[in-house]
Amino acid sequence: MPLTITRFAPENLSSAEVTKSLTTDRQSASYKFEYFAVSGFGAVPRDLLSFGGAQWEDLLITNWSPDVKAPFGVFPVLHIKTADGQEIRLAEVIVIEHYLAKQFGLLGENEWEELQIKTFYSSSLYLRERLSMRVTWNYKEVQEKALEKFFEKELPVWIETHTKHLKDNGSNGHYVGNKLSLADLMTANSIDHFKCLYKGDEIVDKIKQGSPEIWKVKETVDSEPRLQTWRQSEAYKKQVSNSQLMYAHSGI
Amino acid sequence: MPLTITRFAPENLSSAEVTKSLTTDRQSASYKFEYFAVSGFGAVPRDLLSFGGAQWEDLLITNWSPDVKAPFGVFPVLHIKTADGQEIRLAEVIVIEHYLAKQFGLLGENEWEELQIKTFYSSSLYLRERLSMRVTWNYKEVQEKALEKFFEKELPVWIETHTKHLKDNGSNGHYVGNKLSLADLMTANSIDHFKCLYKGDEIVDKIKQGSPEIWKVKETVDSEPRLQTWRQSEAYKKQVSNSQLMYAHSGI
Repeated sequence: MPLTITRFAPENLSSAEVTKSLTTDRQSASYKFEYFAVSGFGAVPRDLLSFGGAQWEDLLITNWSPDVKAPFGVFPVLHIKTADGQEIRLAEVIVIEHYLAKQFGLLGENEWEELQIKTFYSSSLYLRERLSMRVTWNYKEVQEKALEKFFEKELPVWIETHTKHLKDNGSNGHYVGNKLSLADLMTANSIDHFKCLYKGDEIVDKIKQGSPEIWKVKETVDSEPRLQTWRQSEAYKKQVSNSQLMYAHSGI
Repeated sequence: MPLTITRFAPENLSSAEVTKSLTTDRQSASYKFEYFAVSGFGAVPRDLLSFGGAQWEDLLITNWSPDVKAPFGVFPVLHIKTADGQEIRLAEVIVIEHYLAKQFGLLGENEWEELQIKTFYSSSLYLRERLSMRVTWNYKEVQEKALEKFFEKELPVWIETHTKHLKDNGSNGHYVGNKLSLADLMTANSIDHFKCLYKGDEIVDKIKQGSPEIWKVKETVDSEPRLQTWRQSEAYKKQVSNSQLMYAHSGI
């Protein structure tokens, strides 16, 4: 696979100059989100951009074995066009999602709220990653028993601990405080991701039956007016149906 | 396994009050790092605490199937005692490592440097996670071919891309700018982690032979005077030898 390793920012700019470009008139920045036409790792960034009311578009990779041009040879990549016209790239989902969440006010009201939001976010991210690495993209001959282990161990601990912390926050459909955050978006989108997987109905059912508190987070996210337009679009629906097709043939 | 789900902060404090406790006289905070007596996920936080000259101690879990008391039922957990005497817990390695790196000046000089440092950090973290989830703690019957795949795909792409970005930064032993950062610590500690694994010598040799630039990061971290005392301690040496023993029996 031919790989062209791109820079994150123009070579002639110092880090102080890139910072200035990023931080001047942040609201006038526009975005292109480079990824495949599936939900997967693209779902949370697209929700963030939509929620934020940003000027953004999908930059879809249509060739599934492309000549890769990216900073790490992997996608997604977020292309930022700053208010003063510089083109900056971000890679790595954690960095992209933290960045966009910060831009659009989804990291809480103070440092402790931000730490808590990032903590719940990380816990749900890892649940998705574990399932993805250990089951979905594992070898076919071990997928079934790896999924059994996920049902016996990781999933119940995640449900039990998240339910407890959500109760501590008043079972109000949010992890932290009384408003939408990156943590809420990650959990809701992880559940949507699980739906597309082999035995996904069973995973989702265990969450729904096991925790009205987690389910309330999902319903709260799903009913968020600022996400509705995006989620009712043909592009979104196509990404979900592509995910279902792709995961129907998972395993290696 | 009995699980007690603990809170992150005292119940009677608002998030604004916790923020105040965390941010007042940050340098007088002290830390306990709760984890097993192995390097693994403990190596980077312990390096950060040592580099920062913090008042800290290991809170070692000596029973390997303990009654777990933790916010998510998993370790590590960082216990912070704030200058005004509050006890706060952080969970999730990404949150703990970002937090400590920020306290001790290891996230660069401005927003763009911080974003880049977190990006390289994430890329090396994911390399370690992929190896851990897909090979080290995968089923024995697929470990060998999963490792082959790691050698064919993930590892060369990581080496090639990191080498390019390190060259762009002047091949000076640092990912960003001209000083130690969280990114440098993560890459150096990941290599130390690989050493403890099955065929670890082969992984490390491929990195060393394939990239003088990455190797220079490791040597620069290893020669950092502020890490020497910790790394020459009996506690550190014991954690490394325990890791070697543990990973000799990896696989499920």
